[in-house]
Amino acid sequence: MPTGDSLGLAEAKSPQEVEVVTYISHLECPKCGRSYAPFQPNNVCQCGAPLLVRYNLGEMARSISRRELKRRKPGMWKYADFLPVANEDNIVSLGEGGTPMLRTKSLGKALGIDNLWIKDEGLNATGSFKARGASCGISRCKELGIDKIAMPTAGNAGGAWSCYAAKAGIESYIVMPIDAEKVPMLECYLSGAKTYLVKGLISDAGKIIAKGAAKYGWFDVSTLKEPYRIEGKKTMGLEIAEDFDWGAPDVILYPTGGGVGLIGIWKAYQELIEMGWVKGKMPKLVAVQAEGCMPIVQAYNEGKDHSEFWPNATTVAGGVRVPKALGDFLVLQAIRETGGTAIAISDPELIEGVKLTALTEGMFICPEGGATVAAARHLVQTGFIKPEDKVVILNTGTGLKYPEIIKPDLPVLEIGGEIVL
Amino acid sequence: MPTGDSLGLAEAKSPQEVEVVTYISHLECPKCGRSYAPFQPNNVCQCGAPLLVRYNLGEMARSISRRELKRRKPGMWKYADFLPVANEDNIVSLGEGGTPMLRTKSLGKALGIDNLWIKDEGLNATGSFKARGASCGISRCKELGIDKIAMPTAGNAGGAWSCYAAKAGIESYIVMPIDAEKVPMLECYLSGAKTYLVKGLISDAGKIIAKGAAKYGWFDVSTLKEPYRIEGKKTMGLEIAEDFDWGAPDVILYPTGGGVGLIGIWKAYQELIEMGWVKGKMPKLVAVQAEGCMPIVQAYNEGKDHSEFWPNATTVAGGVRVPKALGDFLVLQAIRETGGTAIAISDPELIEGVKLTALTEGMFICPEGGATVAAARHLVQTGFIKPEDKVVILNTGTGLKYPEIIKPDLPVLEIGGEIVL
Repeated sequence: MPTGDSLGLAEAKSPQEVEVVTYISHLECPKCGRSYAPFQPNNVCQCGAPLLVRYNLGEMARSISRRELKRRKPGMWKYADFLPVANEDNIVSLGEGGTPMLRTKSLGKALGIDNLWIKDEGLNATGSFKARGASCGISRCKELGIDKIAMPTAGNAGGAWSCYAAKAGIESYIVMPIDAEKVPMLECYLSGAKTYLVKGLISDAGKIIAKGAAKYGWFDVSTLKEPYRIEGKKTMGLEIAEDFDWGAPDVILYPTGGGVGLIGIWKAYQELIEMGWVKGKMPKLVAVQAEGCMPIVQAYNEGKDHSEFWPNATTVAGGVRVPKALGDFLVLQAIRETGGTAIAISDPELIEGVKLTALTEGMFICPEGGATVAAARHLVQTGFIKPEDKVVILNTGTGLKYPEIIKPDLPVLEIGGEIVL
Repeated sequence: MPTGDSLGLAEAKSPQEVEVVTYISHLECPKCGRSYAPFQPNNVCQCGAPLLVRYNLGEMARSISRRELKRRKPGMWKYADFLPVANEDNIVSLGEGGTPMLRTKSLGKALGIDNLWIKDEGLNATGSFKARGASCGISRCKELGIDKIAMPTAGNAGGAWSCYAAKAGIESYIVMPIDAEKVPMLECYLSGAKTYLVKGLISDAGKIIAKGAAKYGWFDVSTLKEPYRIEGKKTMGLEIAEDFDWGAPDVILYPTGGGVGLIGIWKAYQELIEMGWVKGKMPKLVAVQAEGCMPIVQAYNEGKDHSEFWPNATTVAGGVRVPKALGDFLVLQAIRETGGTAIAISDPELIEGVKLTALTEGMFICPEGGATVAAARHLVQTGFIKPEDKVVILNTGTGLKYPEIIKPDLPVLEIGGEIVL
């Protein structure tokens, strides 16, 4: 029997019947330090900051081994011990995680980096890294008996959460900008989400969701407004660490909108270092944004702890078109504590990054991924990246979801025609 | 260091320096029985039929174990022993294979099948099962020193082969129907393939490629015109067998255009049975086609060994719009010898299959996959599928590559608006 059997849509159980197989301890506010029990639905802290999941890491380190992990079936849920789901029956999976870490020698040569890898999150269900957060978040919704979720989205998160909600039998309400990519709209629509477009940005969509959640009792799963999405994203960091034989590359470049992925990778390394599984220093985390929406970069350059709302945000890379992130202070802290940096890329440059990667590596990455490629080039030029550094680029999704970003002009032949060179 | 390191673009070696790590024995014509040495480029047999790769299976069975396979890093190349590449340095990989086998209980309930799984090939590089064939085929091109390939395509194969060729530094020439999906055109264009559109079908594209290959010396990698694509596709069968603990489901439904995937799965089971790794009977193989292009179904129904060219082929499922397949006789043999069948689905029904799968399972499958879902429903009704049968549906690609197949009509809100239920 396929192992997938145990990852299917099981009968729902009441929380009381849940058998604890997680090392979850409590939820903690990284701003004011308050803690909360993890046994009922939680959004943000009383102080308004996002909550982070804390585990009994010592107990975990004593109970499982890296060797045991290596033997498990690949995919995100092999790291179940590091995740907050208590009962395996509540796991809602579409085969996310376990994405390839590809050595990209030709691209590296073009950029002047000897040791360059791309971790390709396009090979996830729903075509992006959002699948990890949705799988973990929806699994916890199921575990806690939540039957209606709601969120604003730039596109990919909505596509992922509505698909995982459909798999779990949970209703979903999604609002996205009217100029978001068409493919995620289709994912939401087909998976049965109640899907709305707004003539504005993701921040405008967020306000509409907040009103609806207050009125209709939907559980608000906006970025960092529930504590479990980040845990799913954290598995990117666990995989990178395992790929590097429980070590770290020197630099990780991450396209940063809401910033959950970057915070998640940081959290993964914090936990692994605390457990003693990873020795030595953290990877330097680099937040990559678009010039048309660079609140984190601005705050970083100005030495501030929080970002300012970025007015008139505009970029073709929808995933980083986030004018103000709830977790901005955590992103800034992660960058500074790891010795990273923040950098903004123009739209023409990020599209050039997409093209260069396709041409040299045969990988059709997303515009956000293209921004990190362009960022790597800049950071070599500034000397931030040394030629001998091990550098990982996070490609957050497949370019297949952006069919309109580049228009090829192809020659047309008649039936019976021939190619003349 | 990531294992990906060893899967990168290595320095090319001359065939003479190749270290043999494969069990390849020879190439064999399944029609006339002629055999060929596998040490230089081969297309088809002198008799015009496709060539199949034969291995020293006894030696392989003595040298590797199922336990050892389980320990290897996931993905298609964990089955390297079953594949024709002699030198690991020639492997061209974008992280293909190791796709999830998902238990689909809600869809199964809707169709009346208790034990239904979908193997989701959408989670491959380039978003389809074509990645497997391209990875193996391009790796062998690299190994044999081929530097220019050419092929006709309905879309996905061209996208895959041009991306893998780019990764390997091999030039590619692609011709596809002018009404093919736009996303694969973009994949070919971005990865640097010389890409042409033809005002006709894949069969018209094939004639143009054949002329160009004769004139310019390109290596023709059309479906089954070289022997290695099928070996990559074979790994789907190896994975299914391993997923079922070295056994088989009762029925496998496969969308059939060129038929290479179906032949590949059949070949995998033949080899595993010969090695003694799989005991018992073969899975019944079902070829699913579209009503607008059903040459295999017609030949099957008429008891013929070969199909007739299907005139005026038309269906939204481009992957099965193949009027005449070179391997038709092998597909028909596979169906008959395994006790399978062949069935055609109308376009509205296959789109309904896509919708039903998204709604019940949160999976956005391709139209070809939708056809297999519709086929499963029909075959339950005819009694071919028994309620207790273990049934595997092969979803050959992600629906993300078909953004225009369904047009959602979504409500639009103003900034500051609200959702009213």
